[in-house]
Amino acid sequence: MNINFTSQTQVRVRYGETDQMGYCYYGNYAQFFEIGRVEAMRDIGMSYRELEERGVMLPVSTFSINYKSPARYDDLLEIETTITLVTGARIQFDYIIRCEEKLICTATTVLVFVSKDSMRPIPAPNYFLQLVEPHKSQV
Amino acid sequence: MNINFTSQTQVRVRYGETDQMGYCYYGNYAQFFEIGRVEAMRDIGMSYRELEERGVMLPVSTFSINYKSPARYDDLLEIETTITLVTGARIQFDYIIRCEEKLICTATTVLVFVSKDSMRPIPAPNYFLQLVEPHKSQV
Amino acid sequence: MNINFTSQTQVRVRYGETDQMGYCYYGNYAQFFEIGRVEAMRDIGMSYRELEERGVMLPVSTFSINYKSPARYDDLLEIETTITLVTGARIQFDYIIRCEEKLICTATTVLVFVSKDSMRPIPAPNYFLQLVEPHKSQV
Amino acid sequence: MNINFTSQTQVRVRYGETDQMGYCYYGNYAQFFEIGRVEAMRDIGMSYRELEERGVMLPVSTFSINYKSPARYDDLLEIETTITLVTGARIQFDYIIRCEEKLICTATTVLVFVSKDSMRPIPAPNYFLQLVEPHKSQV
Repeated sequence: MNINFTSQTQVRVRYGETDQMGYCYYGNYAQFFEIGRVEAMRDIGMSYRELEERGVMLPVSTFSINYKSPARYDDLLEIETTITLVTGARIQFDYIIRCEEKLICTATTVLVFVSKDSMRPIPAPNYFLQLVEPHKSQV
Repeated sequence: MNINFTSQTQVRVRYGETDQMGYCYYGNYAQFFEIGRVEAMRDIGMSYRELEERGVMLPVSTFSINYKSPARYDDLLEIETTITLVTGARIQFDYIIRCEEKLICTATTVLVFVSKDSMRPIPAPNYFLQLVEPHKSQV
Repeated sequence: MNINFTSQTQVRVRYGETDQMGYCYYGNYAQFFEIGRVEAMRDIGMSYRELEERGVMLPVSTFSINYKSPARYDDLLEIETTITLVTGARIQFDYIIRCEEKLICTATTVLVFVSKDSMRPIPAPNYFLQLVEPHKSQV
Repeated sequence: MNINFTSQTQVRVRYGETDQMGYCYYGNYAQFFEIGRVEAMRDIGMSYRELEERGVMLPVSTFSINYKSPARYDDLLEIETTITLVTGARIQFDYIIRCEEKLICTATTVLVFVSKDSMRPIPAPNYFLQLVEPHKSQV
Protein backbone atom coordinates (compact mmCIF):
# COMPACT_ATOMS: atom_id res chain seq x y z
CA MET A 1 0.00 0.00 0.00
CA ASN A 2 1.50 3.33 -1.10
CA ILE A 3 1.15 6.02 1.53
CA ASN A 4 1.70 9.74 1.45
CA PHE A 5 1.84 11.10 4.96
CA THR A 6 4.36 13.82 5.73
CA SER A 7 5.47 15.22 9.06
CA GLN A 8 7.85 18.03 10.00
CA THR A 9 10.12 18.28 12.98
CA GLN A 10 13.28 20.10 13.97
CA VAL A 11 16.54 19.23 15.63
CA ARG A 12 19.45 21.45 16.57
CA VAL A 13 22.98 20.12 15.95
CA ARG A 14 24.71 19.55 19.30
CA TYR A 15 28.35 20.35 19.92
CA GLY A 16 29.07 16.71 20.61
CA GLU A 17 27.62 15.85 17.21
CA THR A 18 30.27 17.80 15.33
CA ASP A 19 33.60 16.26 14.38
CA GLN A 20 36.99 17.81 13.85
CA MET A 21 36.08 18.75 10.27
CA GLY A 22 33.60 21.11 11.91
CA TYR A 23 30.73 19.16 10.35
CA CYS A 24 27.92 17.21 11.93
CA TYR A 25 29.38 13.67 11.96
CA TYR A 26 27.90 11.50 9.21
CA GLY A 27 26.88 8.80 11.68
CA ASN A 28 24.63 11.11 13.69
CA TYR A 29 21.99 11.52 10.99
CA ALA A 30 20.57 8.08 11.80
CA GLN A 31 19.41 9.54 15.13
CA PHE A 32 17.84 12.51 13.34
CA PHE A 33 15.84 10.19 11.07
CA GLU A 34 14.74 8.20 14.10
CA ILE A 35 13.45 11.48 15.58
CA GLY A 36 11.72 12.21 12.26
CA ARG A 37 9.90 8.90 12.08
CA VAL A 38 9.01 8.92 15.79
CA GLU A 39 7.34 12.30 15.31
CA ALA A 40 5.66 11.10 12.07
CA MET A 41 4.18 8.19 13.99
CA ARG A 42 3.06 10.46 16.84
CA ASP A 43 1.43 12.73 14.23
CA ILE A 44 -0.39 9.87 12.50
CA GLY A 45 -1.81 8.77 15.83
CA MET A 46 0.39 6.16 17.49
CA SER A 47 3.62 6.90 19.27
CA TYR A 48 6.46 4.44 18.84
CA ARG A 49 6.50 4.04 22.62
CA GLU A 50 2.88 2.90 22.50
CA LEU A 51 3.66 0.46 19.68
CA GLU A 52 6.36 -1.16 21.83
CA GLU A 53 3.99 -1.26 24.80
CA ARG A 54 1.62 -3.25 22.57
CA GLY A 55 4.40 -5.77 21.97
CA VAL A 56 5.63 -4.63 18.56
CA MET A 57 9.11 -3.42 17.72
CA LEU A 58 10.34 -1.76 14.52
CA PRO A 59 13.99 -2.57 13.86
CA VAL A 60 15.58 -0.98 10.80
CA SER A 61 16.19 -3.33 7.87
CA THR A 62 17.82 -1.03 5.31
CA PHE A 63 19.05 2.54 5.47
CA SER A 64 20.60 4.70 2.78
CA ILE A 65 21.56 8.35 2.75
CA ASN A 66 22.93 10.94 0.35
CA TYR A 67 24.85 13.76 2.00
CA LYS A 68 24.41 16.99 -0.01
CA SER A 69 25.80 19.78 2.22
CA PRO A 70 27.39 19.62 5.63
CA ALA A 71 25.42 20.70 8.69
CA ARG A 72 27.27 22.61 11.37
CA TYR A 73 27.14 23.16 15.13
CA ASP A 74 23.98 24.88 16.36
CA ASP A 75 22.27 24.62 12.94
CA LEU A 76 18.53 24.16 13.29
CA LEU A 77 17.67 21.31 10.94
CA GLU A 78 14.21 20.85 9.42
CA ILE A 79 13.41 17.15 9.08
CA GLU A 80 10.66 16.25 6.62
CA THR A 81 9.59 12.63 7.04
CA THR A 82 7.20 10.86 4.69
CA ILE A 83 5.67 7.42 5.20
CA THR A 84 5.71 6.10 1.63
CA LEU A 85 4.91 2.39 1.83
CA VAL A 86 3.36 -0.15 4.18
CA THR A 87 3.40 -3.67 2.80
CA GLY A 88 3.29 -6.94 4.71
CA ALA A 89 5.71 -6.61 7.60
CA ARG A 90 7.49 -3.59 6.14
CA ILE A 91 7.18 0.17 6.40
CA GLN A 92 9.23 2.70 4.47
CA PHE A 93 10.07 6.23 5.56
CA ASP A 94 11.72 8.82 3.29
CA TYR A 95 13.48 11.86 4.70
CA ILE A 96 14.68 15.26 3.58
CA ILE A 97 16.76 17.43 5.89
CA ARG A 98 17.13 21.14 5.15
CA CYS A 99 18.74 24.03 6.97
CA GLU A 100 17.34 27.45 6.07
CA GLU A 101 16.17 26.14 2.66
CA LYS A 102 19.56 24.52 1.94
CA LEU A 103 19.37 20.79 1.21
CA ILE A 104 21.50 18.89 3.72
CA CYS A 105 20.65 15.27 2.87
CA THR A 106 18.02 12.83 1.68
CA ALA A 107 17.54 9.35 3.04
CA THR A 108 15.29 6.33 3.14
CA THR A 109 14.78 3.56 5.68
CA VAL A 110 12.81 0.33 5.61
CA LEU A 111 11.71 -1.03 8.98
CA VAL A 112 10.15 -4.36 9.89
CA PHE A 113 7.29 -5.01 12.30
CA VAL A 114 8.59 -7.59 14.78
CA SER A 115 6.76 -9.29 17.64
CA LYS A 116 8.52 -8.77 20.99
CA ASP A 117 7.43 -12.25 22.05
CA SER A 118 8.54 -14.29 19.05
CA MET A 119 11.18 -11.85 17.84
CA ARG A 120 9.89 -12.64 14.32
CA PRO A 121 8.44 -10.40 11.59
CA ILE A 122 4.68 -9.97 11.69
CA PRO A 123 2.24 -8.15 9.38
CA ALA A 124 1.66 -4.50 10.23
CA PRO A 125 -0.95 -4.57 13.03
CA ASN A 126 -4.54 -3.65 12.09
CA TYR A 127 -4.70 -0.76 14.56
CA PHE A 128 -1.72 0.71 12.74
CA LEU A 129 -3.10 0.04 9.24
CA GLN A 130 -6.28 1.89 10.19
CA LEU A 131 -4.19 4.95 10.95
CA VAL A 132 -2.30 4.95 7.64
CA GLU A 133 -5.15 3.90 5.29
CA PRO A 134 -6.70 7.40 5.11
CA HIS A 135 -3.35 8.49 3.65
CA LYS A 136 -3.27 5.89 0.87
CA SER A 137 -1.80 7.26 -2.34
CA GLN A 138 -2.23 6.15 -5.98
CA VAL A 139 1.42 6.51 -6.91
CA MET B 1 35.46 -3.73 51.93
CA ASN B 2 38.41 -1.91 50.39
CA ILE B 3 39.65 -3.58 47.22
CA ASN B 4 42.74 -3.08 45.12
CA PHE B 5 42.31 -4.78 41.78
CA THR B 6 43.65 -3.02 38.72
CA SER B 7 43.08 -3.78 35.07
CA GLN B 8 44.45 -2.24 31.87
CA THR B 9 42.76 -1.82 28.54
CA GLN B 10 43.05 0.37 25.47
CA VAL B 11 40.72 2.32 23.26
CA ARG B 12 41.44 4.31 20.13
CA VAL B 13 39.67 7.66 19.72
CA ARG B 14 37.25 7.43 16.79
CA TYR B 15 36.71 10.23 14.30
CA GLY B 16 33.09 10.50 15.36
CA GLU B 17 34.24 11.02 18.94
CA THR B 18 36.06 14.25 18.14
CA ASP B 19 34.29 17.60 18.15
CA GLN B 20 34.98 20.79 16.25
CA MET B 21 37.61 21.85 18.81
CA GLY B 22 39.56 18.86 17.48
CA TYR B 23 39.32 17.21 20.91
CA CYS B 24 37.67 14.01 21.98
CA TYR B 25 34.24 15.25 23.12
CA TYR B 26 33.97 15.40 26.93
CA GLY B 27 30.83 13.26 26.95
CA ASN B 28 32.51 10.29 25.28
CA TYR B 29 34.73 9.42 28.23
CA ALA B 30 31.80 7.80 30.03
CA GLN B 31 31.89 5.09 27.34
CA PHE B 32 35.63 4.65 27.83
CA PHE B 33 35.16 4.11 31.57
CA GLU B 34 32.42 1.61 30.86
CA ILE B 35 34.91 -0.26 28.66
CA GLY B 36 37.46 -0.05 31.47
CA ARG B 37 35.17 -1.51 34.13
CA VAL B 38 33.78 -4.16 31.79
CA GLU B 39 37.34 -5.37 31.14
CA ALA B 40 38.18 -5.14 34.87
CA MET B 41 35.20 -7.38 35.62
CA ARG B 42 36.18 -9.80 32.85
CA ASP B 43 39.71 -9.90 34.33
CA ILE B 44 38.51 -10.55 37.87
CA GLY B 45 36.44 -13.47 36.62
CA MET B 46 32.89 -12.42 35.78
CA SER B 47 31.90 -10.55 32.65
CA TYR B 48 29.25 -7.90 32.98
CA ARG B 49 27.22 -9.81 30.38
CA GLU B 50 27.25 -12.86 32.68
CA LEU B 51 26.19 -10.72 35.65
CA GLU B 52 23.15 -9.50 33.70
CA GLU B 53 22.36 -13.05 32.62
CA ARG B 54 22.25 -13.91 36.35
CA GLY B 55 19.65 -11.22 36.85
CA VAL B 56 21.82 -8.42 38.23
CA MET B 57 22.31 -5.00 36.67
CA LEU B 58 24.84 -2.32 37.62
CA PRO B 59 23.48 1.16 36.91
CA VAL B 60 25.79 4.08 37.64
CA SER B 61 24.91 6.12 40.72
CA THR B 62 27.59 8.83 40.70
CA PHE B 63 30.26 9.78 38.20
CA SER B 64 32.91 12.48 38.37
CA ILE B 65 35.79 13.30 36.10
CA ASN B 66 38.73 15.70 35.92
CA TYR B 67 39.92 16.50 32.42
CA LYS B 68 43.68 17.12 32.41
CA SER B 69 44.73 17.15 28.73
CA PRO B 70 42.66 16.76 25.60
CA ALA B 71 42.75 13.49 23.67
CA ARG B 72 42.71 13.68 19.89
CA TYR B 73 41.56 11.65 16.93
CA ASP B 74 43.33 8.29 16.54
CA ASP B 75 45.06 8.59 19.93
CA LEU B 76 45.49 5.20 21.56
CA LEU B 77 44.29 5.68 25.13
CA GLU B 78 45.47 3.51 28.03
CA ILE B 79 42.66 3.01 30.53
CA GLU B 80 43.70 1.92 34.02
CA THR B 81 40.69 0.79 36.04
CA THR B 82 40.83 -0.03 39.74
CA ILE B 83 38.07 -1.59 41.80
CA THR B 84 38.51 0.27 45.08
CA LEU B 85 35.45 -0.48 47.19
CA VAL B 86 32.62 -3.01 47.48
CA THR B 87 30.21 -2.24 50.27
CA GLY B 88 26.58 -3.28 50.61
CA ALA B 89 24.94 -2.69 47.26
CA ARG B 90 27.73 -0.45 45.97
CA ILE B 91 30.91 -0.86 43.99
CA GLN B 92 33.41 1.87 43.21
CA PHE B 93 35.74 2.02 40.21
CA ASP B 94 38.53 4.58 39.83
CA TYR B 95 40.05 5.34 36.43
CA ILE B 96 43.16 6.94 34.98
CA ILE B 97 43.45 7.52 31.25
CA ARG B 98 46.87 8.18 29.72
CA CYS B 99 48.11 8.62 26.18
CA GLU B 100 51.82 7.88 25.71
CA GLU B 101 52.48 8.64 29.40
CA LYS B 102 50.55 11.91 29.26
CA LEU B 103 47.73 12.13 31.78
CA ILE B 104 44.42 12.69 29.98
CA CYS B 105 41.92 12.42 32.85
CA THR B 106 41.04 10.79 36.15
CA ALA B 107 37.58 9.70 37.15
CA THR B 108 35.52 7.73 39.62
CA THR B 109 32.16 6.00 39.42
CA VAL B 110 29.94 4.37 42.00
CA LEU B 111 27.56 1.70 40.71
CA VAL B 112 24.71 -0.09 42.45
CA PHE B 113 23.83 -3.77 42.28
CA VAL B 114 20.17 -3.92 41.20
CA SER B 115 17.92 -6.94 40.78
CA LYS B 116 16.44 -7.16 37.28
CA ASP B 117 13.25 -8.62 38.77
CA SER B 118 12.54 -6.10 41.51
CA MET B 119 14.51 -3.21 39.98
CA ARG B 120 15.73 -2.53 43.54
CA PRO B 121 19.23 -2.39 45.05
CA ILE B 122 20.53 -5.69 46.42
CA PRO B 123 23.75 -6.59 48.26
CA ALA B 124 26.65 -7.54 46.02
CA PRO B 125 26.02 -11.22 45.16
CA ASN B 126 28.15 -13.82 46.97
CA TYR B 127 29.58 -15.23 43.75
CA PHE B 128 30.88 -11.76 43.00
CA LEU B 129 32.21 -11.15 46.53
CA GLN B 130 34.22 -14.37 46.28
CA LEU B 131 35.96 -12.99 43.22
CA VAL B 132 36.93 -9.68 44.82
CA GLU B 133 37.82 -10.91 48.33
CA PRO B 134 41.31 -12.15 47.36
CA HIS B 135 42.01 -8.53 46.38
CA LYS B 136 41.01 -7.04 49.73
CA SER B 137 43.22 -4.13 50.74
CA GLN B 138 44.01 -2.63 54.16
CA VAL B 139 43.80 0.97 53.03
CA MET C 1 32.06 36.42 41.19
CA ASN C 2 29.00 34.45 42.30
CA ILE C 3 26.25 34.45 39.70
CA ASN C 4 22.64 33.37 39.82
CA PHE C 5 21.27 33.08 36.32
CA THR C 6 18.92 30.21 35.56
CA SER C 7 17.66 28.95 32.24
CA GLN C 8 15.19 26.21 31.30
CA THR C 9 15.23 23.96 28.29
CA GLN C 10 13.86 20.58 27.28
CA VAL C 11 15.16 17.50 25.57
CA ARG C 12 13.35 14.32 24.61
CA VAL C 13 15.17 11.01 25.19
CA ARG C 14 15.94 9.41 21.82
CA TYR C 15 15.64 5.70 21.17
CA GLY C 16 19.34 5.50 20.42
CA GLU C 17 20.04 7.03 23.83
CA THR C 18 18.50 4.10 25.70
CA ASP C 19 20.51 1.02 26.59
CA GLN C 20 19.45 -2.57 27.11
CA MET C 21 18.45 -1.83 30.71
CA GLY C 22 15.74 0.31 29.11
CA TYR C 23 17.28 3.41 30.69
CA CYS C 24 18.80 6.48 29.12
CA TYR C 25 22.50 5.53 29.03
CA TYR C 26 24.49 7.28 31.78
CA GLY C 27 26.98 8.69 29.28
CA ASN C 28 24.36 10.62 27.32
CA TYR C 29 23.62 13.14 30.07
CA ALA C 30 26.81 15.04 29.24
CA GLN C 31 25.16 16.02 25.94
CA PHE C 32 22.02 17.14 27.78
CA PHE C 33 24.06 19.42 30.04
CA GLU C 34 25.84 20.83 27.01
CA ILE C 35 22.39 21.65 25.58
CA GLY C 36 21.47 23.21 28.92
CA ARG C 37 24.49 25.50 29.09
CA VAL C 38 24.29 26.41 25.40
CA GLU C 39 20.71 27.59 25.93
CA ALA C 40 21.71 29.36 29.17
CA MET C 41 24.36 31.27 27.24
CA ARG C 42 21.92 32.08 24.44
CA ASP C 43 19.48 33.35 27.09
CA ILE C 44 22.06 35.54 28.79
CA GLY C 45 22.94 37.12 25.47
CA MET C 46 25.81 35.34 23.76
CA SER C 47 25.51 32.05 21.94
CA TYR C 48 28.33 29.58 22.33
CA ARG C 49 28.69 29.64 18.54
CA GLU C 50 29.32 33.39 18.69
CA LEU C 51 31.87 32.93 21.48
CA GLU C 52 33.82 30.50 19.27
CA GLU C 53 33.56 32.89 16.34
CA ARG C 54 35.22 35.49 18.57
CA GLY C 55 38.13 33.09 19.10
CA VAL C 56 37.21 31.69 22.52
CA MET C 57 36.50 28.04 23.33
CA LEU C 58 35.07 26.58 26.53
CA PRO C 59 36.39 23.06 27.14
CA VAL C 60 35.08 21.25 30.22
CA SER C 61 37.54 20.95 33.09
CA THR C 62 35.53 18.96 35.66
CA PHE C 63 32.17 17.26 35.53
CA SER C 64 30.28 15.37 38.22
CA ILE C 65 26.80 13.93 38.28
CA ASN C 66 24.45 12.17 40.69
CA TYR C 67 21.92 9.90 39.06
CA LYS C 68 18.69 9.86 41.09
CA SER C 69 16.10 8.12 38.89
CA PRO C 70 16.43 6.60 35.44
CA ALA C 71 15.04 8.44 32.42
CA ARG C 72 13.37 6.36 29.73
CA TYR C 73 12.76 6.44 26.01
CA ASP C 74 10.58 9.35 24.83
CA ASP C 75 10.65 11.03 28.26
CA LEU C 76 10.56 14.81 27.95
CA LEU C 77 13.31 16.04 30.27
CA GLU C 78 13.30 19.52 31.84
CA ILE C 79 16.86 20.83 32.14
CA GLU C 80 17.39 23.65 34.62
CA THR C 81 20.81 25.23 34.18
CA THR C 82 22.27 27.80 36.53
CA ILE C 83 25.44 29.80 36.00
CA THR C 84 26.80 29.93 39.55
CA LEU C 85 30.35 31.22 39.31
CA VAL C 86 32.63 33.15 36.97
CA THR C 87 36.13 33.58 38.31
CA GLY C 88 39.33 34.19 36.36
CA ALA C 89 39.32 31.76 33.44
CA ARG C 90 36.59 29.57 34.92
CA ILE C 91 32.82 29.35 34.71
CA GLN C 92 30.63 26.95 36.64
CA PHE C 93 27.24 25.63 35.59
CA ASP C 94 24.93 23.61 37.86
CA TYR C 95 22.15 21.45 36.45
CA ILE C 96 18.97 19.77 37.60
CA ILE C 97 17.09 17.43 35.30
CA ARG C 98 13.47 16.55 36.07
CA CYS C 99 10.82 14.55 34.26
CA GLU C 100 7.24 15.44 35.22
CA GLU C 101 8.43 16.75 38.62
CA LYS C 102 10.51 13.63 39.28
CA LEU C 103 14.18 14.32 39.97
CA ILE C 104 16.34 12.52 37.40
CA CYS C 105 19.81 13.85 38.24
CA THR C 106 21.87 16.79 39.45
CA ALA C 107 25.24 17.76 38.04
CA THR C 108 27.91 20.42 37.95
CA THR C 109 30.55 21.34 35.39
CA VAL C 110 33.47 23.75 35.44
CA LEU C 111 34.62 25.06 32.06
CA VAL C 112 37.68 27.09 31.14
CA PHE C 113 37.89 30.03 28.76
CA VAL C 114 40.60 29.13 26.23
CA SER C 115 41.99 31.20 23.37
CA LYS C 116 41.66 29.43 20.02
CA ASP C 117 44.95 31.00 18.93
CA SER C 118 47.16 30.16 21.88
CA MET C 119 45.13 27.18 23.09
CA ARG C 120 45.76 28.54 26.61
CA PRO C 121 43.39 29.64 29.38
CA ILE C 122 42.44 33.30 29.33
CA PRO C 123 40.33 35.45 31.69
CA ALA C 124 36.64 35.52 30.88
CA PRO C 125 36.32 38.14 28.11
CA ASN C 126 34.91 41.55 29.09
CA TYR C 127 32.00 41.31 26.66
CA PHE C 128 30.97 38.14 28.45
CA LEU C 129 31.49 39.57 31.97
CA GLN C 130 29.19 42.47 31.07
CA LEU C 131 26.44 39.98 30.33
CA VAL C 132 26.75 38.09 33.62
CA GLU C 133 27.41 41.02 35.97
CA PRO C 134 23.74 42.05 36.22
CA HIS C 135 23.14 38.57 37.66
CA LYS C 136 25.75 38.85 40.40
CA SER C 137 24.66 37.17 43.63
CA GLN C 138 25.72 37.71 47.25
CA VAL C 139 25.88 34.04 48.16
CA MET D 1 40.12 2.43 -11.21
CA ASN D 2 38.72 -0.76 -9.67
CA ILE D 3 40.59 -1.80 -6.55
CA ASN D 4 40.56 -4.95 -4.48
CA PHE D 5 42.22 -4.33 -1.16
CA THR D 6 40.70 -5.93 1.92
CA SER D 7 41.43 -5.31 5.56
CA GLN D 8 40.14 -6.92 8.76
CA THR D 9 39.52 -5.34 12.11
CA GLN D 10 37.43 -5.98 15.20
CA VAL D 11 35.20 -3.96 17.47
CA ARG D 12 33.38 -5.01 20.60
CA VAL D 13 29.80 -3.73 21.08
CA ARG D 14 29.73 -1.32 24.05
CA TYR D 15 26.91 -1.22 26.57
CA GLY D 16 26.10 2.34 25.56
CA GLU D 17 25.73 1.17 21.97
CA THR D 18 22.79 -1.09 22.78
CA ASP D 19 19.23 0.17 22.83
CA GLN D 20 16.18 -0.97 24.75
CA MET D 21 15.48 -3.69 22.17
CA GLY D 22 18.72 -5.21 23.45
CA TYR D 23 20.29 -4.70 20.01
CA CYS D 24 23.22 -2.60 18.92
CA TYR D 25 21.48 0.62 17.82
CA TYR D 26 21.24 0.90 14.02
CA GLY D 27 22.91 4.31 14.03
CA ASN D 28 26.12 3.06 15.64
CA TYR D 29 27.26 1.01 12.66
CA ALA D 30 28.42 4.16 10.88
CA GLN D 31 31.16 4.44 13.53
CA PHE D 32 32.11 0.79 13.00
CA PHE D 33 32.53 1.37 9.25
CA GLU D 34 34.63 4.43 9.96
CA ILE D 35 36.87 2.21 12.12
CA GLY D 36 36.97 -0.31 9.26
CA ARG D 37 38.06 2.19 6.63
CA VAL D 38 40.53 3.92 8.96
CA GLU D 39 42.24 0.57 9.55
CA ALA D 40 42.09 -0.26 5.81
CA MET D 41 43.88 3.00 5.08
CA ARG D 42 46.45 2.35 7.80
CA ASP D 43 47.01 -1.13 6.29
CA ILE D 44 47.45 0.22 2.75
CA GLY D 45 50.06 2.65 3.99
CA MET D 46 48.54 6.00 4.89
CA SER D 47 46.60 6.69 8.05
CA TYR D 48 43.59 8.94 7.79
CA ARG D 49 45.21 11.19 10.40
CA GLU D 50 48.21 11.62 8.06
CA LEU D 51 45.91 12.39 5.13
CA GLU D 52 44.30 15.20 7.13
CA GLU D 53 47.72 16.48 8.19
CA ARG D 54 48.52 16.75 4.45
CA GLY D 55 45.47 18.97 4.03
CA VAL D 56 42.99 16.44 2.65
CA MET D 57 39.69 15.45 4.24
CA LEU D 58 37.37 12.59 3.26
CA PRO D 59 33.75 13.42 4.04
CA VAL D 60 31.17 10.72 3.30
CA SER D 61 29.01 11.34 0.25
CA THR D 62 26.69 8.31 0.27
CA PHE D 63 26.15 5.50 2.74
CA SER D 64 23.84 2.50 2.55
CA ILE D 65 23.47 -0.49 4.80
CA ASN D 66 21.51 -3.75 4.96
CA TYR D 67 20.93 -5.07 8.47
CA LYS D 68 20.85 -8.89 8.43
CA SER D 69 21.01 -9.96 12.09
CA PRO D 70 21.15 -7.90 15.26
CA ALA D 71 24.42 -7.54 17.15
CA ARG D 72 24.26 -7.57 20.93
CA TYR D 73 26.16 -6.18 23.90
CA ASP D 74 29.74 -7.47 24.23
CA ASP D 75 29.64 -9.18 20.80
CA LEU D 76 33.04 -9.11 19.13
CA LEU D 77 32.35 -7.95 15.59
CA GLU D 78 34.63 -8.77 12.65
CA ILE D 79 34.70 -5.90 10.18
CA GLU D 80 35.88 -6.74 6.66
CA THR D 81 36.55 -3.57 4.67
CA THR D 82 37.34 -3.56 0.96
CA ILE D 83 38.47 -0.57 -1.09
CA THR D 84 36.65 -1.23 -4.36
CA LEU D 85 36.94 1.93 -6.44
CA VAL D 86 39.04 5.09 -6.70
CA THR D 87 37.92 7.41 -9.46
CA GLY D 88 38.44 11.16 -9.76
CA ALA D 89 37.66 12.64 -6.37
CA ARG D 90 35.84 9.54 -5.11
CA ILE D 91 36.72 6.43 -3.17
CA GLN D 92 34.37 3.58 -2.40
CA PHE D 93 34.59 1.22 0.57
CA ASP D 94 32.45 -1.93 0.96
CA TYR D 95 31.95 -3.57 4.34
CA ILE D 96 30.82 -6.90 5.76
CA ILE D 97 30.33 -7.31 9.51
CA ARG D 98 30.17 -10.80 10.99
CA CYS D 99 29.95 -12.13 14.53
CA GLU D 100 31.22 -15.70 14.93
CA GLU D 101 30.53 -16.43 11.24
CA LYS D 102 27.01 -14.98 11.45
CA LEU D 103 26.35 -12.19 8.95
CA ILE D 104 25.37 -9.01 10.80
CA CYS D 105 25.24 -6.47 7.97
CA THR D 106 26.69 -5.33 4.66
CA ALA D 107 27.27 -1.73 3.69
CA THR D 108 28.90 0.60 1.23
CA THR D 109 30.14 4.19 1.46
CA VAL D 110 31.42 6.64 -1.12
CA LEU D 111 33.74 9.36 0.18
CA VAL D 112 35.10 12.45 -1.53
CA PHE D 113 38.62 13.85 -1.40
CA VAL D 114 38.27 17.47 -0.27
CA SER D 115 40.95 20.12 0.15
CA LYS D 116 41.01 21.57 3.66
CA ASP D 117 41.99 24.94 2.19
CA SER D 118 39.38 25.33 -0.53
CA MET D 119 36.80 22.97 1.02
CA ARG D 120 36.26 21.70 -2.56
CA PRO D 121 36.58 18.24 -4.10
CA ILE D 122 40.00 17.42 -5.52
CA PRO D 123 41.33 14.38 -7.42
CA ALA D 124 42.72 11.62 -5.22
CA PRO D 125 46.28 12.76 -4.40
CA ASN D 126 49.13 11.04 -6.26
CA TYR D 127 50.78 9.78 -3.05
CA PHE D 128 47.52 7.99 -2.29
CA LEU D 129 47.06 6.63 -5.83
CA GLN D 130 50.53 5.10 -5.64
CA LEU D 131 49.45 3.14 -2.59
CA VAL D 132 46.27 1.74 -4.16
CA GLU D 133 47.59 1.08 -7.70
CA PRO D 134 49.31 -2.20 -6.80
CA HIS D 135 45.85 -3.44 -5.80
CA LYS D 136 44.17 -2.61 -9.11
CA SER D 137 41.60 -5.20 -10.11
CA GLN D 138 40.20 -6.15 -13.54
CA VAL D 139 36.63 -6.46 -12.39
